[in-house]
Amino acid sequence: MNRKVYFAGSIRAGREDADLYKTIIDYIKETDTVLTEHVGDLSLSAFEQDADADAAIYLQDTAWIRECDLLIGECTRPSLGVGYELAYAEKYEKPCYIFYRKSECELSAMIKGDSYYKVFPYEDPEEMLKLIDDILR
Amino acid sequence: MNRKVYFAGSIRAGREDADLYKTIIDYIKETDTVLTEHVGDLSLSAFEQDADADAAIYLQDTAWIRECDLLIGECTRPSLGVGYELAYAEKYEKPCYIFYRKSECELSAMIKGDSYYKVFPYEDPEEMLKLIDDILR
Repeated sequence: MNRKVYFAGSIRAGREDADLYKTIIDYIKETDTVLTEHVGDLSLSAFEQDADADAAIYLQDTAWIRECDLLIGECTRPSLGVGYELAYAEKYEKPCYIFYRKSECELSAMIKGDSYYKVFPYEDPEEMLKLIDDILR
Repeated sequence: MNRKVYFAGSIRAGREDADLYKTIIDYIKETDTVLTEHVGDLSLSAFEQDADADAAIYLQDTAWIRECDLLIGECTRPSLGVGYELAYAEKYEKPCYIFYRKSECELSAMIKGDSYYKVFPYEDPEEMLKLIDDILR
């Protein structure tokens, strides 16, 4: 299909799920394009940059959201930036598919209570990849 | 002045800073109104509610953001919901003042790099209350 996917995952809020993000990104890339491939880069810096660098990240990521066909977010790890990205994607009416491991977190009411989002609790990665299959293929 | 303040802090993403939220809310209430007083309630449930209850929280909180004069957020603890609230407040052009303890977290580039927000790193609560003084009084 080669749709443009904005994948959202935690960077500065914690990289504990970075391996999983890489698995998801690689899977999506089998058929489509991931604009935010760096989110799965295991060597990505999780530290604040200087003001100019942070502004450049912000401008790039918001441009990618406006450009994407859909957003897929892995939201098990709470992240301020991902919350911002979800709201920004909603503002531009981008379809948003949100995944989280129900046994490991309590999903925010601002996301779970917002009927705009399609929310998918899951437990193991295989189950999630199958759900992504249903969305993309 | 009695302005309406939307105070944003983590609920389901972790209540480790709930005492601090209460201190900030009590301080703001000396001169102004805090719409989201429950964020400082030490007995507040951090668990997911059923779909109807989460939808009610979402509708109430977004109505409060549209109603508020300004937003003050304590963002040391990463939170998906707070990220959403910040973007929602920006959409409605509400002034946003964001605080975080620089020694304890790396603030998201989506917030630090977004020139819309006024961001205040701080270290001890006294310093933060003084900054809030400058904003409100």
